Amino acid sequence: MQSDLAIARSAALKPLDEVAASMGIGPDLLEPYGENVAKIKLKAVDELADRPPAKYVVVTAITPTPLGEGKTTTTVGLGQAFKHIGKRATIAIRQPSMGPTFGIKGGAAGGGWSQVVPMELLNLHLTGDMHAVTAAHNLLSAMLDNSLHQGNPHDLDLDAITWRRVLDVNDRALRNIVVGLGGKEDGVTRQTGFDITAASEVMAVLALSTSLQDLRRRLGRVVVGYTRAGDPVTAEDLQAAGSMAVIMREAIKPNLLQTLENTPVLVHAGPFGNIAHGNSSVVADLIGIRGGDYLVTEAGFGADIGGEKFFNIKCRTSGLRPDAAVVVATVRALKAHSGRHRVVAGRPLPEAMLQENPDEVLEGAANLVKQIDNVRLHGVSPVVAINAFPEDFASEHEAIRQVAEQAGARVAVCTHFSDGGRGAIELAEAVAEASAEPTDFRFLYPAAASLREKIETIAERVYGADGVDYSPAASRQLDTYERNGFGDLPVCIAKTHLSISSDPSLKGAPTGWRLPVREVRANIGAGFVYPICGDMRTMPGLGTRAAAMSIDLDDDGEIVGLS
Amino acid sequence: MQSDLAIARSAALKPLDEVAASMGIGPDLLEPYGENVAKIKLKAVDELADRPPAKYVVVTAITPTPLGEGKTTTTVGLGQAFKHIGKRATIAIRQPSMGPTFGIKGGAAGGGWSQVVPMELLNLHLTGDMHAVTAAHNLLSAMLDNSLHQGNPHDLDLDAITWRRVLDVNDRALRNIVVGLGGKEDGVTRQTGFDITAASEVMAVLALSTSLQDLRRRLGRVVVGYTRAGDPVTAEDLQAAGSMAVIMREAIKPNLLQTLENTPVLVHAGPFGNIAHGNSSVVADLIGIRGGDYLVTEAGFGADIGGEKFFNIKCRTSGLRPDAAVVVATVRALKAHSGRHRVVAGRPLPEAMLQENPDEVLEGAANLVKQIDNVRLHGVSPVVAINAFPEDFASEHEAIRQVAEQAGARVAVCTHFSDGGRGAIELAEAVAEASAEPTDFRFLYPAAASLREKIETIAERVYGADGVDYSPAASRQLDTYERNGFGDLPVCIAKTHLSISSDPSLKGAPTGWRLPVREVRANIGAGFVYPICGDMRTMPGLGTRAAAMSIDLDDDGEIVGLS
Repeated sequence: MQSDLAIARSAALKPLDEVAASMGIGPDLLEPYGENVAKIKLKAVDELADRPPAKYVVVTAITPTPLGEGKTTTTVGLGQAFKHIGKRATIAIRQPSMGPTFGIKGGAAGGGWSQVVPMELLNLHLTGDMHAVTAAHNLLSAMLDNSLHQGNPHDLDLDAITWRRVLDVNDRALRNIVVGLGGKEDGVTRQTGFDITAASEVMAVLALSTSLQDLRRRLGRVVVGYTRAGDPVTAEDLQAAGSMAVIMREAIKPNLLQTLENTPVLVHAGPFGNIAHGNSSVVADLIGIRGGDYLVTEAGFGADIGGEKFFNIKCRTSGLRPDAAVVVATVRALKAHSGRHRVVAGRPLPEAMLQENPDEVLEGAANLVKQIDNVRLHGVSPVVAINAFPEDFASEHEAIRQVAEQAGARVAVCTHFSDGGRGAIELAEAVAEASAEPTDFRFLYPAAASLREKIETIAERVYGADGVDYSPAASRQLDTYERNGFGDLPVCIAKTHLSISSDPSLKGAPTGWRLPVREVRANIGAGFVYPICGDMRTMPGLGTRAAAMSIDLDDDGEIVGLS
Repeated sequence: MQSDLAIARSAALKPLDEVAASMGIGPDLLEPYGENVAKIKLKAVDELADRPPAKYVVVTAITPTPLGEGKTTTTVGLGQAFKHIGKRATIAIRQPSMGPTFGIKGGAAGGGWSQVVPMELLNLHLTGDMHAVTAAHNLLSAMLDNSLHQGNPHDLDLDAITWRRVLDVNDRALRNIVVGLGGKEDGVTRQTGFDITAASEVMAVLALSTSLQDLRRRLGRVVVGYTRAGDPVTAEDLQAAGSMAVIMREAIKPNLLQTLENTPVLVHAGPFGNIAHGNSSVVADLIGIRGGDYLVTEAGFGADIGGEKFFNIKCRTSGLRPDAAVVVATVRALKAHSGRHRVVAGRPLPEAMLQENPDEVLEGAANLVKQIDNVRLHGVSPVVAINAFPEDFASEHEAIRQVAEQAGARVAVCTHFSDGGRGAIELAEAVAEASAEPTDFRFLYPAAASLREKIETIAERVYGADGVDYSPAASRQLDTYERNGFGDLPVCIAKTHLSISSDPSLKGAPTGWRLPVREVRANIGAGFVYPICGDMRTMPGLGTRAAAMSIDLDDDGEIVGLS
């Protein structure tokens, strides 16, 4: 098969006007950015509000291997498939981060014959939204450090500053730094660091805002640290929020691209899935929900993480109600959940995993059952998408089908990677059936519950933990947040995506364990409190052989080596 | 008078297709970015190459006060004025840096009725070129530090690493930092720092490249440091140059905007004027030179700095030959050159400078005479533009006129700030006359001269120094560069822009002094060696009252407070 880039470049793109028209958006609502990308004006939210809403479908997954199980590819494949059964669909996904594109992971435009194009633009700057997040975030950082330099009028406690800086690059050397060295004019010396832009609270704000005014208000509420008396200091206090909103003024407009089969795709925002909620933007969905019969969106990582956060954070903010949830499963991931293999990113699969072995799939099936259950917990109909790989055996697909059906889910085997939308027709039909059922969507917890109640509800009901253990620091932080009036925010638990538990080595559906909450941070602007369970890396590094080393221009100025 | 932003917002913008058509560029060469900005495809350089070239006019200035003397405003006013005398003009300027926009200086879109619009976009991200420079630069930084972390295969000398990081923000705390703290996986600990993006060598590469292929080659030649044996290590050695070029692939296309009077404006690249050459891009000029009767471009700071670098660096690279040079002069700057006043950025002028005093103007006139001479040194016809302010007196303008005419320059009083192009008709006529004269353009030095000969030629003939003193370090560095084969590069002297000398407190046209060269650095990728004379700040800071504190969105989502 051809490379993703070669397939993407062979695509017959439609003029974006036509793509927009297929979701009922006229040229007056478009701002072209180059030939094959456009921004959609924000007034589209209001102008389209009286159209009938599409069915709202979220694509989530079982607990993935470090290789990923093709969730974006399935999202794109499903979106493409609807056209094959006579339905109009819109897709909404996150913008890839440039850091991983040049690191190990590569881009995130889908793959094979289920891709978003132009993939070169999607995987690089697109319309600059990521850069705007970087600029807005770092302006606040500069104003914060400048405030310290100018005599610290806000009485900030240097040991209680939580705001760092961000860059969209995998740069391990920036994780822990000391700033303000040099002379008297060179700022106040203190330890801090950089996170990757996807980890910025400004990114989470972008993803959760419902309007430009809402974005402005959320930015004002961003807490950068605490005074020596323990009171929060905000971006508003530093008089930075207005300029930050000005910097974000274009970035809040969703980007329109298309798939290889010309299905409209909204690409907007790219928050992390652990320390943030890992979902594309609310405004993109508010527009996409008016675009036809189905809006297919993707939630980061497995149903325990991105899925739970989609239901309880994103839907709570947007007011939208999901009609169905796709749970992507693969033979290789279920074999890995048997606990018999070790899968490492950037390396080929162990030979033993490539043998026909439906029993091993069944041994790992507890993970699938639990993730189906995690969808049903929210009253949403699950559909299992078996993302087929060439090395799979029919008996292994059959094993997944049995387990899923026994758990009460619809099931479809998908070959959209090699066959495009045609390869996901069975899935589209199953999703159509599932979303035609009456919905009974419900949040897992009410906003009025205490922060501890929220954490414990998720830990016990979604993760299957026996309970939660708080470190003394975490307990103090929770008390502080409750006292500061942040107790009614949803919680966004930062834990590994490689296990339903907080221990990445535990496969399947672990039981008999307790969730350890090491510390609790708060993104007051974005609107969630995030307990940290385990080591969360917020700035990736490059390996010995970074993807960047193989990416170049050819003699015609075309990109080579990007994937 | 209304604020710049209010005037800009009241502008009757023409569709960009029409603006492009007025410079002979069809819609097939345009890539729209939003409604009022477009990129011009790079193939325009070749496609337009057989059209007759426009007259090439560079706008430079006397030595400015810290307030600036309205060079961009005059560039825009002159460009607008040509239409009033029946000629077609194109303008080419640098992209403003976002750091100063939120700092003290504000944006750089011109002012009053001589502005480039939409000024909100120009002063913020525009099409993301600055962000692309930041991303390409910092990818190389990450790959460099990662190479150290992965066992330092290139045997880099940690004390001889010259490559830093960049951000487009005024952030004094980032000037001197220590990276690589934390644990073993968090990189190698070493001291380094951030410069503002305008100071990036990648920015200078963008500004001086003649094609995408040339940009790729220049990026490969970028030197990041030296081995323990003293050999240069390049971006090509680190296998970073290909990805950097991929990141810059869209950024190398010039941006098309328009003035308040619909004159086409190419905005492209924004290199610093001290440690870099301070001129907009070569590719923009290669396109703009085919756009009509006149191409008006601007060179940073005074004729001794941006002007000299325009002639000897930019024109040497582009192959274009200037036909006339405008020297912007103001009453306030010439009064300041009398040495009797102290002008401080962000504060009102001293009361004493606002009195009618043509004698004081004459006392400062030596600076004007010397800068006129600096233009003539290169065989180019000078035209003095007196940029009139409301507080000026006619007698003071008359004094400037006498001095300029005595020095053999044409002269025009301009009121384009308050009157738009109409206010610069006299200037346009004088420029038309000057550029109709036979040209005798010449470089100040041949490429084959030694680096020391080049430095001394500029110091003595342009700056009026008695000679050059090299520190021992500078001498060693010059020897190293000559030995490494960099001796045929032009030199780009980094010195204060507030005096023709290297001492910012010396006004007028200082004599009886020697130029002290403290150290010499090399931008091998961009293609120049830069001797450093005095303290050059490459990362600005914010003041107690940053512009960012006053910028915000109003209830309609429109920007307020931007200037």
